[in-house]
Amino acid sequence: MSKIERLRGFKDYYPEDMQKREEIFSIMRNAAKSFGFLPIDYPSLEMLEIYRIKSGDELVGQTYNFKDKSNREITLIPEATPSTMRMLVSRKDLVKPVKWYNIPKLWRYEEPQSGRNREHYQFNADYFGETGIEIDAELIALACETLNRMGLKGMYVVRVNHRKLMEKILSKLGCVNIQSSISTIDHFRKESIETIGNKLRDDGVVDDNLNRLLNFLSKSYPVSEIQNSIKDLGLDLLEDEDFLRMISTVEFLFKNGYEDIVYDPSTVRGLSYYTGIVFEGFDVDGKFRSIFGGGRYDNLSQLFEGQEIPAVGFGMGDAVLENLLKEKNLWKVDNGHSSYFLVGMGREGKNKAANLLYKLRRNGKTAVMENSERNISNSLKHASSMNFTHAIIIGEKELTERSLTIKNLINGEQKKIGENELDEL
Amino acid sequence: MSKIERLRGFKDYYPEDMQKREEIFSIMRNAAKSFGFLPIDYPSLEMLEIYRIKSGDELVGQTYNFKDKSNREITLIPEATPSTMRMLVSRKDLVKPVKWYNIPKLWRYEEPQSGRNREHYQFNADYFGETGIEIDAELIALACETLNRMGLKGMYVVRVNHRKLMEKILSKLGCVNIQSSISTIDHFRKESIETIGNKLRDDGVVDDNLNRLLNFLSKSYPVSEIQNSIKDLGLDLLEDEDFLRMISTVEFLFKNGYEDIVYDPSTVRGLSYYTGIVFEGFDVDGKFRSIFGGGRYDNLSQLFEGQEIPAVGFGMGDAVLENLLKEKNLWKVDNGHSSYFLVGMGREGKNKAANLLYKLRRNGKTAVMENSERNISNSLKHASSMNFTHAIIIGEKELTERSLTIKNLINGEQKKIGENELDEL
Repeated sequence: MSKIERLRGFKDYYPEDMQKREEIFSIMRNAAKSFGFLPIDYPSLEMLEIYRIKSGDELVGQTYNFKDKSNREITLIPEATPSTMRMLVSRKDLVKPVKWYNIPKLWRYEEPQSGRNREHYQFNADYFGETGIEIDAELIALACETLNRMGLKGMYVVRVNHRKLMEKILSKLGCVNIQSSISTIDHFRKESIETIGNKLRDDGVVDDNLNRLLNFLSKSYPVSEIQNSIKDLGLDLLEDEDFLRMISTVEFLFKNGYEDIVYDPSTVRGLSYYTGIVFEGFDVDGKFRSIFGGGRYDNLSQLFEGQEIPAVGFGMGDAVLENLLKEKNLWKVDNGHSSYFLVGMGREGKNKAANLLYKLRRNGKTAVMENSERNISNSLKHASSMNFTHAIIIGEKELTERSLTIKNLINGEQKKIGENELDEL
Repeated sequence: MSKIERLRGFKDYYPEDMQKREEIFSIMRNAAKSFGFLPIDYPSLEMLEIYRIKSGDELVGQTYNFKDKSNREITLIPEATPSTMRMLVSRKDLVKPVKWYNIPKLWRYEEPQSGRNREHYQFNADYFGETGIEIDAELIALACETLNRMGLKGMYVVRVNHRKLMEKILSKLGCVNIQSSISTIDHFRKESIETIGNKLRDDGVVDDNLNRLLNFLSKSYPVSEIQNSIKDLGLDLLEDEDFLRMISTVEFLFKNGYEDIVYDPSTVRGLSYYTGIVFEGFDVDGKFRSIFGGGRYDNLSQLFEGQEIPAVGFGMGDAVLENLLKEKNLWKVDNGHSSYFLVGMGREGKNKAANLLYKLRRNGKTAVMENSERNISNSLKHASSMNFTHAIIIGEKELTERSLTIKNLINGEQKKIGENELDEL
């Protein structure tokens, strides 16, 4: 006998939560399928080197890495993109466009906090090989559609921006260290306006330019206002191709039913490899971390292989989603599905119940039978408490009549049917 | 640019395989649900100690274990039962029976071989808190039902035995080291009959007893012959409660539609913690390792906690299953599901296509549109090669008529429908 504890920062999922999580994964898979994305899967362990290439030492410090028996540095995968990219470049025969999704488990060795455990699942979708605005829009639409199918329509907003546009704005405002300023802006809502201002000033954005930039960063613009959004900056960018592209993307989404989208200049995504549109989904109340995030990253494949492959994708973790659904009272399983609890009395009744039990199961129904020696009233109480919708009772009378008594456990109604009507349930 | 390789002993799953694997996982989940099992999930990392308790140092040597930053010995989980057991004993409020399933990823650091990678998924189902033969039967039935739903009915056989019965037989035949002989018998089909005989002789089974035992072990008995199976041993066990229980279990399964079951004295399952029925599923041709295996283990909970909790369960890995399905030509996705490839000509046609595209997707259909500049004939070829069942073409004529041309890509038939008939697809 020994006391075994779960590791800190990890969670067990009991059925009351896991049923809902399965439902959510199923919504993700079905949404991806509707959009023509196909499933892939990759190992949970990779060479540590792959993350050094993409994300540098900060990420590497947060991985569960160790040396294997051959002294190779390997790690539990902390993110999805490098493995996906490895799979993509190692197959030359794939017909473009390649549209893949997966829901891998990922691990980060950092301090656990709300919406962030050391282990989580992440829905990832990526679209490779095409560059049009319809493609950028498709990824944003898929993220929205997934949330809509969970009942979250109207409860989230997608903030979009264009990385290159932002870089041009910074440059025109005097910034001499673009990557540093992008990192600063990435913390816009997390640090004080003074801190942000000081850092941007250090990068060369000063005086009036700085004031205009901070003002610009603090707003976000619905589809009808994007055209005017950058006017106040007084920059020559109204006809800029990236600006126009971003507008077209948002308009395309709006026209096709995805309206909860704003242009948000402070959404830049910290990672250095984004090359075009970037986006993040948040709850409208701003209570949680981002629900999903992604963007276009046409150059990343070059780090893995010589060739450039256009790419746009997103990741949607399960932890923030769970918190949000719980807060909105949407974290409940409602499968509208009948389920049967069979009670047979006496040896013969039990035999008959077992027989019907397996028939129902083979018909795809959820069915269990009473195996303990409870009396009928306690059996029915137990069945109700386990959320079965119907009890099927087989006593002496039913055996003689070749009938079944069916009790609806939700409204208490009871009726008799012939044994041969079972298939119609 | 850098060449990144996948780790040895691990597999990537591209869509051509992953779609089928998703289908298989879905069959597992639905079968478990039909039987009233509920999903759980647990971390992929556990304290290494938990495996020392249950399985000893041999297993521990095959784990991906390492020390974390707090110098704790932790490991990627090599099997499902200890985590399940940890979850079970740490909740006092659970109403029995508890019926749980999961499909976790598991890791073993051993030499990769056919049907055995360093990482695999395993469908696990466990039933806690009840002891009847219906419960033992239910687990075997669930494993069978899962395989049947994959189209494997008639292609597998379940070998069952009763661990305590086997121990009594060994004892009555003179065996003085039961656990050692059980381990020997566990290798019955893997080692020569001489080796097996020598080992059993060392444990005290000699002369005539040894010959009768080896003869007995080499056979298996269908339901109609079980009664007579142990007669030749000349032992006083025909009325033994464990023997009768095993017979009842097999008969129960037979009566309820699961007939591919034999009593197989050499099936003992090596692990020391089994206390009752044990079973393994094999392909009838005997080409592969076991497809699934399990048994009753009423005492294991005592290793985790003082209390004894009746338990029976099984594990079914995905690797042997994949090999078997491939060999039987059943490794193909056939979802009978329509999918649409939309082709819009010109700017206006493309806009209309995008609009219909998102309508179809919101209706739950699989739909994509042509975003590249291929001509129509190449678009249709591409759509066919990607296994889309229908193309929807929107040219100038269709725009004027508010109609759609639908081409069945399987039989080549083509028809026109009104735009407003789209919802009926």
